[in-house]
Amino acid sequence: MSEHNATAARPPGRPRSARADEAIIEAALDIIAEGNTVDALSMDAVAARAGVGKATVYRRWSNKEALMMDAIVALKGDIPKPAGESVRADLIALLGRVGRYGGRAGKIMPCLAPEIHRNPELYDRYVAWVEERREVIRDVLRRGIGTGELDPDLDIELAVAALTSPVTMQSQLRWHPHLTKERLAERLVDMVLNGIRPPAR
Amino acid sequence: MSEHNATAARPPGRPRSARADEAIIEAALDIIAEGNTVDALSMDAVAARAGVGKATVYRRWSNKEALMMDAIVALKGDIPKPAGESVRADLIALLGRVGRYGGRAGKIMPCLAPEIHRNPELYDRYVAWVEERREVIRDVLRRGIGTGELDPDLDIELAVAALTSPVTMQSQLRWHPHLTKERLAERLVDMVLNGIRPPAR
Repeated sequence: MSEHNATAARPPGRPRSARADEAIIEAALDIIAEGNTVDALSMDAVAARAGVGKATVYRRWSNKEALMMDAIVALKGDIPKPAGESVRADLIALLGRVGRYGGRAGKIMPCLAPEIHRNPELYDRYVAWVEERREVIRDVLRRGIGTGELDPDLDIELAVAALTSPVTMQSQLRWHPHLTKERLAERLVDMVLNGIRPPAR
Repeated sequence: MSEHNATAARPPGRPRSARADEAIIEAALDIIAEGNTVDALSMDAVAARAGVGKATVYRRWSNKEALMMDAIVALKGDIPKPAGESVRADLIALLGRVGRYGGRAGKIMPCLAPEIHRNPELYDRYVAWVEERREVIRDVLRRGIGTGELDPDLDIELAVAALTSPVTMQSQLRWHPHLTKERLAERLVDMVLNGIRPPAR
């Protein structure tokens, strides 16, 4: 409440500009989510969709690559917090979120892939965004080593890749047409935890 | 040798046209491998790169999407044959090939991703191409269930995804900057085979 009042007391220019920034970023994300590549994205189209003048867009971002970098960060701001009960439950909860940024981000990521591949700065920005979320998974794995739930010699980076890649590819690219999505995170976590050799008798 | 003579005995038009087709497909693949999206690809540029007239390109392919479909198939024609000694060795050999189509295909796949996402026919064609290769992995897994090397209740589709996705993402997108590539296939196969729980004592 008091925060709301504080905002209202600010000079009128500042919040309007923040609202315009947000509208511009949302417009860029919407256009990409419709299946357009960054290549095909124009600052004109972004301005029109956001309902602002082109000059307003350029005042804040000198080119569409710079705009896309901020758009990626805006796509999903929160870092998940595991409950901390068991490694299995935490991993299932964390993986259940991968690729579920709402339908839009799932559509955006494949369209960004070629751009990320070509543009090292965008790649770095995107990886930093992903790494911040991966660090939560690493923490769960490290905790599992400490509690004895996991192999003390675990290759943490490989485990992160083994756990996240199948879910990412399936949610973003429908990569495996014969793989059912139902309880995918849970089934994958159990497979990676237990392995695929015959169970011990 | 005799095949070479047989080719030489054919009417001159046929092989020249086959050579032109091949040059056109190679040109399209080269342009995409340079980091261009299918969006940015023009039939003019393909014709110029292949050293043929635009009419020659259009005689064979009515649009660039049709050309890309044949280009995907041309990218890697052979289906691997596992040695059949152990499931572990076969999986390592098969995964060692994933994403290693030479540097070019690794560059092409990320550029195709948005196109595949937008174009259901291209998606189907690409998935059919991938599925043919996945079937070899499924065969190895089924054999492993038969020999007792693998859990009889194995979810084969999930195992295929768990084994191939991390290698695909790492080779095509350098997805995990902290994950070393050295012996990646072997390390992943052992992780999925044995799981990440502490080893039994």
